[in-house]
Amino acid sequence: MRRSPALKVGIIGGTGYTGVELLRILASHPCAEVTVITSRSESGQPVSRYFPSLNGHCDLVFSDPERGELSECDVVFSAAPNGVAMTFAEELIAAGVKFIDLSADFRLKDVAQWEQWYGMKHHCPDLISSAAYGLPEINRARIQGAQLVANPGCYPTVIQLGFLPLLENRLVEVGSLIADAKSGISGAGRKAAMATSFCEVSDSFKAYSVSGHRHLPEIKQGLQEVSDEAVDLVFAPHLLPTIRGIHATLYARLTDESESLMTEKIQAFFEERYENEPFVDVLPPGSHPDTRSVRGSNNCQIAIHRPQQGKTIVVLAVADNLVKGAAGQAIQNMNLMAGFDEDCGLQVIALVP
Amino acid sequence: MRRSPALKVGIIGGTGYTGVELLRILASHPCAEVTVITSRSESGQPVSRYFPSLNGHCDLVFSDPERGELSECDVVFSAAPNGVAMTFAEELIAAGVKFIDLSADFRLKDVAQWEQWYGMKHHCPDLISSAAYGLPEINRARIQGAQLVANPGCYPTVIQLGFLPLLENRLVEVGSLIADAKSGISGAGRKAAMATSFCEVSDSFKAYSVSGHRHLPEIKQGLQEVSDEAVDLVFAPHLLPTIRGIHATLYARLTDESESLMTEKIQAFFEERYENEPFVDVLPPGSHPDTRSVRGSNNCQIAIHRPQQGKTIVVLAVADNLVKGAAGQAIQNMNLMAGFDEDCGLQVIALVP
Amino acid sequence: MRRSPALKVGIIGGTGYTGVELLRILASHPCAEVTVITSRSESGQPVSRYFPSLNGHCDLVFSDPERGELSECDVVFSAAPNGVAMTFAEELIAAGVKFIDLSADFRLKDVAQWEQWYGMKHHCPDLISSAAYGLPEINRARIQGAQLVANPGCYPTVIQLGFLPLLENRLVEVGSLIADAKSGISGAGRKAAMATSFCEVSDSFKAYSVSGHRHLPEIKQGLQEVSDEAVDLVFAPHLLPTIRGIHATLYARLTDESESLMTEKIQAFFEERYENEPFVDVLPPGSHPDTRSVRGSNNCQIAIHRPQQGKTIVVLAVADNLVKGAAGQAIQNMNLMAGFDEDCGLQVIALVP
Amino acid sequence: MRRSPALKVGIIGGTGYTGVELLRILASHPCAEVTVITSRSESGQPVSRYFPSLNGHCDLVFSDPERGELSECDVVFSAAPNGVAMTFAEELIAAGVKFIDLSADFRLKDVAQWEQWYGMKHHCPDLISSAAYGLPEINRARIQGAQLVANPGCYPTVIQLGFLPLLENRLVEVGSLIADAKSGISGAGRKAAMATSFCEVSDSFKAYSVSGHRHLPEIKQGLQEVSDEAVDLVFAPHLLPTIRGIHATLYARLTDESESLMTEKIQAFFEERYENEPFVDVLPPGSHPDTRSVRGSNNCQIAIHRPQQGKTIVVLAVADNLVKGAAGQAIQNMNLMAGFDEDCGLQVIALVP
Repeated sequence: MRRSPALKVGIIGGTGYTGVELLRILASHPCAEVTVITSRSESGQPVSRYFPSLNGHCDLVFSDPERGELSECDVVFSAAPNGVAMTFAEELIAAGVKFIDLSADFRLKDVAQWEQWYGMKHHCPDLISSAAYGLPEINRARIQGAQLVANPGCYPTVIQLGFLPLLENRLVEVGSLIADAKSGISGAGRKAAMATSFCEVSDSFKAYSVSGHRHLPEIKQGLQEVSDEAVDLVFAPHLLPTIRGIHATLYARLTDESESLMTEKIQAFFEERYENEPFVDVLPPGSHPDTRSVRGSNNCQIAIHRPQQGKTIVVLAVADNLVKGAAGQAIQNMNLMAGFDEDCGLQVIALVP
Repeated sequence: MRRSPALKVGIIGGTGYTGVELLRILASHPCAEVTVITSRSESGQPVSRYFPSLNGHCDLVFSDPERGELSECDVVFSAAPNGVAMTFAEELIAAGVKFIDLSADFRLKDVAQWEQWYGMKHHCPDLISSAAYGLPEINRARIQGAQLVANPGCYPTVIQLGFLPLLENRLVEVGSLIADAKSGISGAGRKAAMATSFCEVSDSFKAYSVSGHRHLPEIKQGLQEVSDEAVDLVFAPHLLPTIRGIHATLYARLTDESESLMTEKIQAFFEERYENEPFVDVLPPGSHPDTRSVRGSNNCQIAIHRPQQGKTIVVLAVADNLVKGAAGQAIQNMNLMAGFDEDCGLQVIALVP
Repeated sequence: MRRSPALKVGIIGGTGYTGVELLRILASHPCAEVTVITSRSESGQPVSRYFPSLNGHCDLVFSDPERGELSECDVVFSAAPNGVAMTFAEELIAAGVKFIDLSADFRLKDVAQWEQWYGMKHHCPDLISSAAYGLPEINRARIQGAQLVANPGCYPTVIQLGFLPLLENRLVEVGSLIADAKSGISGAGRKAAMATSFCEVSDSFKAYSVSGHRHLPEIKQGLQEVSDEAVDLVFAPHLLPTIRGIHATLYARLTDESESLMTEKIQAFFEERYENEPFVDVLPPGSHPDTRSVRGSNNCQIAIHRPQQGKTIVVLAVADNLVKGAAGQAIQNMNLMAGFDEDCGLQVIALVP
Repeated sequence: MRRSPALKVGIIGGTGYTGVELLRILASHPCAEVTVITSRSESGQPVSRYFPSLNGHCDLVFSDPERGELSECDVVFSAAPNGVAMTFAEELIAAGVKFIDLSADFRLKDVAQWEQWYGMKHHCPDLISSAAYGLPEINRARIQGAQLVANPGCYPTVIQLGFLPLLENRLVEVGSLIADAKSGISGAGRKAAMATSFCEVSDSFKAYSVSGHRHLPEIKQGLQEVSDEAVDLVFAPHLLPTIRGIHATLYARLTDESESLMTEKIQAFFEERYENEPFVDVLPPGSHPDTRSVRGSNNCQIAIHRPQQGKTIVVLAVADNLVKGAAGQAIQNMNLMAGFDEDCGLQVIALVP
């Protein structure tokens, strides 16, 4: 059923969780085919030996990223850790390849800020301004015309989607936003580390990086773009004992003017905002979205509460950090850049239970 | 992309885990469409309200099973508990509907034995002999021509697939087989019960029904059909603190004649047996399949070990109890009965991690 | 090593999680001995058959609560669901028994409010005013002299302990407090329910009762007692896929006057407040307490953060909902009422890993 | 309540899971006190900063193992990885210290076999014969008089305890024993490793080392000592997605002579064998022990089944791999060596739920 010629896709850093997730989703994409997947450490190894879940679905072999096949791709995803994509970007851009970076290398417009939070020198600061921030719900047009896309972080995706209708409609005080966010362990990537070992995190729960997390400037940058006044945000991430899933509980205070609004009206602002968005579901009033209902899917599900009809709006937003928070959103961006239907190959239903 | 007219599919008992799993898989089946889904308790309720994971993928409403729409379907799956399908079978069969029962009602050929293990009187014993046992890997031809299919249990599926090459090739003593099996909690179905509540089973592990489990006669019936001598089996099921997944560790003693066989030869028997099977993977020697690598997929993965080159063969076999052990296998049977490609709509890749 | 005569202890509703937790802790209490444990449904059954973990540690048999042995106890704990303790209270109080209720029956001073949130008529409203609220860190003197103690809820325990130093020192605006709280599944009690079954909650996460939870008025009542101005609180509880553990992430805005305080000073307010408390640990600056570090222990661990040195203080507080949030705190109250050392029998160390 | 002078205890390798478990249990031991705990990597760091669960229960600081304080202890436990204890043994033995090694260094009597399975040269082979194998249920007298004890592995503990009554009474064919064993992840120790990271093992299950595991020779050595005929054993370990807990499902075929025995008689053999053992519970017929019922306790719980009254006996045995399978058993051995009550300080009740 695959139309030919399919888009030729390359993946840098294919042994991580976003790498295997790109393979899983792209395997059933009707108009794209992965032709190159790189890994320095696993070069020469069949991908399906490394990930037995891909048995029969992928006959690729990991290759060394130096071998230059990436330049022959139509699209390249970088699923490597922060700091890697920026070393590939100039060459691929020059070769005319569309480049979608799932790491943080091109997300912050302010280079100095980026260098401070990520603790390294940026390799190609000149490219940053040309990178489209890959959150289609707010940046669709730019993404369609971009050659370089900075795919958003998982926290920034759900937190921005949850806050946007409130900010765009000037309903809340933007100087005192709070995002209490919880992420499954896969958000930390695929690596050997005490901090993410089973016995350390299973059957437990904790906050981390409350004093400052790298996703904070990215979220503030995005929220500021839709606000007249200065945005301030307290962002407290927590580690969930789940494999996937991200849940943001967002708190915002209604302005004095908007406090008299009916809660139904606020719900309506959300429903209208996302009415035509294929991957954002606004749930009925009173709902509490759970992360399993988006497990493996590209959906973000949102519910709005107003406890005791008071001054504070509580938004609950969930997504799969590896899909809408990473690989799925990257493919959504690819679809936009390639002129495909935006949901092409992304109609994967969540795995419940 | 759906060809028309699609097969019209009905589901009895749609609120259980196999029900929602049928919906998940059939939603992307190119040649079948669910048109009726019944639930006495949820009649009138939109399916996607009940399972938010299906938002945007299913606009059906649960209907009352009495309303007779089932007879207008081409195929009906029964995902209801044991004892329900047999009350629908005669009417649907008479109406020319192909009927696939995911419960145990038509699995055992010996009615008396069935009534003893399941503790009820069989409603239509005359239909039993016409039911094809729905394990395609051993019964493909009969399934293709059947109107009534008894979809195997989850344990019987993996245990039979794991033992078959040993028995068909007369390699082992069939009078002393052992199946140490472990199943995720979803194998117990979707219901409120202390025994499957989170705090009772999480972070714990136990055996259950070691003295006798309902799947024992079904497994023995299947193994006996490929053996000349009397099969005896010790079957010890255990409860895993996982949602999905079934893992069978099978022990069989080589006969005196086969003891001199090279282990490679035994591996080869498995590879040859399943060479053309779309949903059985024989892994390379030394492998240890894990349940996550088949999570959500219709695959059964098998590895063969011979510790210390001794007399005992250990077979490791995994599957997703809700897919190859239930809904996926039922759709595989539907494909066979309808003349579709056997893997049509079943190319779902496991969700890893 | 047990001194005699030990305090004779009775437990009402011994088959729940707080019941078995009382048994676990009291088994090593040097000055108390459980002599009666009641359960209507399990009357006559040995406790250790019901809970094999107590094999060799408990030779009691569940008895019927009507049999009147409770009146012969020195202390009775009610570990039964809401609405049960109030039917026993008058008789036990009259018999001179000290009565510690782990349910909500005597927690709210406002009867009308109690009846609204708990949906039943109160059985003995006259007793409410005599009940001491059993949070020793704020109410020690009253508990020592009380005959009836209302043991706090799990959420109210950690949320009050986390907020108290801020409120007592008038550091924050009490009209805009936020408590984003997360609880393990055992908080829902021991019962068969879809909502707490393994396959529904494992590997997932969600909020619940955001629009209003029964613990809200209890928390507000407690916080109001230490504030001059009207306290307002948004309380958003979430369900963690863990057996035990409660984590409160508390947000409070510094008043304009206190905004100039050094963060170290705020840390010091906490350290001084809890310096002599045996069961509250204030962790070093920068800490992120995890629920496992208090699993099975009576400790509450607290850390204070001030992101970006801004206006919002974030307090992280953890406890074991079944211990400091229920059975352990109840025994702490018993120790106070009986004149024992407050930490007697409560020196259980958390189970890590 | 501590009698003085307490036994002075040292711990080598205190940052691992068996190290912190020794600290947890010894903290409430009335006759022993930890005075030294070593860690090369954490030297100088307070133990309670490293393990916040020990806040208020341990004011030790990790010290460098070279500093020689170990020789001043009465008893030293080595909780370090394989290969470390043997480098300390000679010096400590010479200094008159009682030495209990929780690693494998002194478990196998056959040095060549040890060197083959553990892949290193033994440092002090002459000491091996003087080491008592620390399974009190079979070796109590030797342990009481020993200066050096080889604490058994976790698998060997439960598998030997499960098989012993069958072998000692010559009930089964010892040439075809099967041990299908499952262990929680903490059995792999505390270290950063992909193989034990949360996202790799949570919600999944797999066998490992089926072709040969280091505990196999240890188990066979122990079983051989109580058998006249040559013992053969197939040992298949599996990885459970739990923190703690070990479950052995043991299969043994009755001899032709014993086949006529009543099953009650076999149950009786177990009950008599362990009647006076403080840490082995034989559960009533029909029981299925779960690992949570021994979580954190020193108990081994055993149940006996005989499916279909056939030739195969199935023994189910559970323990906490870190307690009866490691630290608890080591303290049980210490009690024997020091002449204390065997259960002194070990009356910890399992944490349920």
